[in-house]
Amino acid sequence: MGVLYSQVADQLQALIQEGVYRQGDRLPGVRVLSRQFGVSISTVLQAHQTLEARGYLEARERSGYFVRLPVQDVPEPSMLKHRSRPVPVTAREMTLDLCADEQKRMVPLATAIPHPDYLPVRQIQQSTLWAARRGLETLDYAFPGKESFRRQIAQRMAAIGVPVTPDDILATNGAQEAIILALRAVTQPGDIVAVESPSFPGILQALEVVGLRVIEIPTHPSEGLSLEGLELALEQWPLKACVVVTNHSNPMGARMSDERKKQLVSMLAAADVPLIEDDIYGDLYHTGERPRPAKAFDRADNVIYCSSFSKTISPGLRLGWMIPGRHMASARQHKYFVNLATSSIPQLAVAHFLEQGGYDRYLRSARQHYREATERMRSAVARSFPEGTAVSRPQGGFVLWVQLPEGVSGTEVYQRARAENINVAPGLMFSTTNKFDNCLRLNGGNPWTGTIEKAVARLGALVHEEMGR
Amino acid sequence: MGVLYSQVADQLQALIQEGVYRQGDRLPGVRVLSRQFGVSISTVLQAHQTLEARGYLEARERSGYFVRLPVQDVPEPSMLKHRSRPVPVTAREMTLDLCADEQKRMVPLATAIPHPDYLPVRQIQQSTLWAARRGLETLDYAFPGKESFRRQIAQRMAAIGVPVTPDDILATNGAQEAIILALRAVTQPGDIVAVESPSFPGILQALEVVGLRVIEIPTHPSEGLSLEGLELALEQWPLKACVVVTNHSNPMGARMSDERKKQLVSMLAAADVPLIEDDIYGDLYHTGERPRPAKAFDRADNVIYCSSFSKTISPGLRLGWMIPGRHMASARQHKYFVNLATSSIPQLAVAHFLEQGGYDRYLRSARQHYREATERMRSAVARSFPEGTAVSRPQGGFVLWVQLPEGVSGTEVYQRARAENINVAPGLMFSTTNKFDNCLRLNGGNPWTGTIEKAVARLGALVHEEMGR
Repeated sequence: MGVLYSQVADQLQALIQEGVYRQGDRLPGVRVLSRQFGVSISTVLQAHQTLEARGYLEARERSGYFVRLPVQDVPEPSMLKHRSRPVPVTAREMTLDLCADEQKRMVPLATAIPHPDYLPVRQIQQSTLWAARRGLETLDYAFPGKESFRRQIAQRMAAIGVPVTPDDILATNGAQEAIILALRAVTQPGDIVAVESPSFPGILQALEVVGLRVIEIPTHPSEGLSLEGLELALEQWPLKACVVVTNHSNPMGARMSDERKKQLVSMLAAADVPLIEDDIYGDLYHTGERPRPAKAFDRADNVIYCSSFSKTISPGLRLGWMIPGRHMASARQHKYFVNLATSSIPQLAVAHFLEQGGYDRYLRSARQHYREATERMRSAVARSFPEGTAVSRPQGGFVLWVQLPEGVSGTEVYQRARAENINVAPGLMFSTTNKFDNCLRLNGGNPWTGTIEKAVARLGALVHEEMGR
Repeated sequence: MGVLYSQVADQLQALIQEGVYRQGDRLPGVRVLSRQFGVSISTVLQAHQTLEARGYLEARERSGYFVRLPVQDVPEPSMLKHRSRPVPVTAREMTLDLCADEQKRMVPLATAIPHPDYLPVRQIQQSTLWAARRGLETLDYAFPGKESFRRQIAQRMAAIGVPVTPDDILATNGAQEAIILALRAVTQPGDIVAVESPSFPGILQALEVVGLRVIEIPTHPSEGLSLEGLELALEQWPLKACVVVTNHSNPMGARMSDERKKQLVSMLAAADVPLIEDDIYGDLYHTGERPRPAKAFDRADNVIYCSSFSKTISPGLRLGWMIPGRHMASARQHKYFVNLATSSIPQLAVAHFLEQGGYDRYLRSARQHYREATERMRSAVARSFPEGTAVSRPQGGFVLWVQLPEGVSGTEVYQRARAENINVAPGLMFSTTNKFDNCLRLNGGNPWTGTIEKAVARLGALVHEEMGR
């Protein structure tokens, strides 16, 4: 739900969007609103600032707050209804460029890595110090994972509708490794696997590592994977697995509804095609309740659940987990073969952090932050980019998917921006086809600074220039 | 080398082996030896105890120490001169059995994992506490590895004849992952790769992960890989890589001489077949100087060096490294694809431990211990097992390779021992063929206890019984 001032801001924003307050209207004074919402004056002031950040209000000195609709109510990207054929996966050069050292000196709008300001640095340090004092416990092989870590994960899984025991959980080096282990457990090289389109590049890389062919399924920017598209693919191709980021999928931030998750699960179970679910953004929902994973609706033990703490506690821990279900023996064997076990110290530290309640406290502020940050970035894109641009409305996480006006190449914009030390992720990275060449992914989770603001404005100018060509 | 009492013990042992003192002779009194060696009386007493442990002396109350030759001077295993054909690798079930939870309650003679008593627990704890206080440094992606870690590794590599910079080093989750990344960099699925025979099971598993075929090259128990065997294989098959544990190879403890390493390197460079070198036991030499790796003789940038701290500092850190040379771009890409980076905290902790000199101090005592422990285990096997048994003389590390009398199945012994809660590694695990079925590998690095002593005696009895069948 978020904190009080944010709830007030949401309600005011709804009133603006519904036209109760219109462009140029002066909002009632703070005392009036304070009484109206039954909150303190300082809460109202915080709500004002929040709406100002989101682009819905402007402050005029000595006059109060006035409604300013975001420059244009920029639409969501459309879903591309394409039909693909299975193809082998080969890496895009640019994917590696994005993680190269030079990137660290650029304006970081490319990678989907949480900003250091929003990591629970001090709290996890306390837990790591606690872990370091465990002596021998930090040094032995943690295969299939530290008991304390797996117990904490089992508790969290139960809370989101997936009742499992610690024995059902395998610790991994992040969700990326979990997805690869899942693919190895259920496929052979050359098999065909269905993924969202646009797709998280890490999933395409996982398919490449295992030597698989991919079929891309059209994906709606807010509803997620097209079930109709998946049905067609199931009829046409002998799929061996389907990999889906069910909650706040990267790059579009789509969240499948419970109803659609249920349909997805039952459709794949009926076809005897395992679902590999990546829930890495599940904890970073912007509003409402923690969305359930598809695994919560899995009656046939046909869903392999994968997740990690790389988008929340820290990417540097390299700590994830999976629930392989009936594929546990195979997943364990592959884990043992590729690197034996996951490092012990991060597992002990995270188990302590979870047990102490630090993670839940951290999530409350992180969700609030990411919600506002992506909203602000969305407004900034709407202001700076030309008409014809569409931007996703992510329901969680911190990335935005920008569809540029027809004919503008995201790759061109990426290269020109890069030359000016602005790093964005070009749409080509998110598919094996060229169909997202007119798209960009932006990291909307950074603290809002003059540098970021200028970078977004400059990107908009570059798109304008590219349009004119 | 080693400490003083151990040098005295070595010299006395040499005198016994050369026949200066014979079976049943009484050694000169402690005062005489103290003067003779120019050491204190307590040093002489420690040397006596060491030789008693090694099986060369027995104490008789009030009479002093008497020479007792080990029951039999057990020979080394013979080298099997076989010719193999390339075959796909598939895992032996028993390999996974060995890492199963039940194993923890058994007498641990199977796994090649260092015993907790000989890990630098307190020192690494200090370094981990130091690392935990680094704050943000512990939380960001360490790709391709923490600078401080790679700098320390570069210094150590230079000291063993491999001058590299931190940029030449890639941090990995142990040597197992490094070997897989190296194989991915230089092979395609289906390619043929040469390995030692018997081979470390982890290397066979790495080949299986990458989908390769293996050709096994005969290996001498003290001289290592047969260069003649390799030459034949190079003539006959289109090898794409050769994986060799050059120093104290697991399971036999063989060390290739510098001369043979040079030949290996130049033979493979001439054939344009990359050498993947696993030097994980290099720091655990029993006598003399730190042996150089083959990489030290690599003029053609044809050797990919892999190592880790899993046999020394701790297996639970999951921390290794590789020097991919001209294959760096490919190795980096594969590392990024499989799990993005190696956990930051272990890298910071180990960098601090190395920088403070703790690792070198630790190694001095660990080497001494493993040397005496394997010697003692060797004597115990010699006493308990029937004639016709052969045992390796490892020059480093802590495992022993036992060749049972002809016709005795190591797998039978393994299964019967397992039923009595004694865990050993059956010879079948170390090959894709059945040619080492009459072998066992024993972990000789445990502290010597009554339990271990009884277990070895019981193993000997089981082998006697199997002979009688």
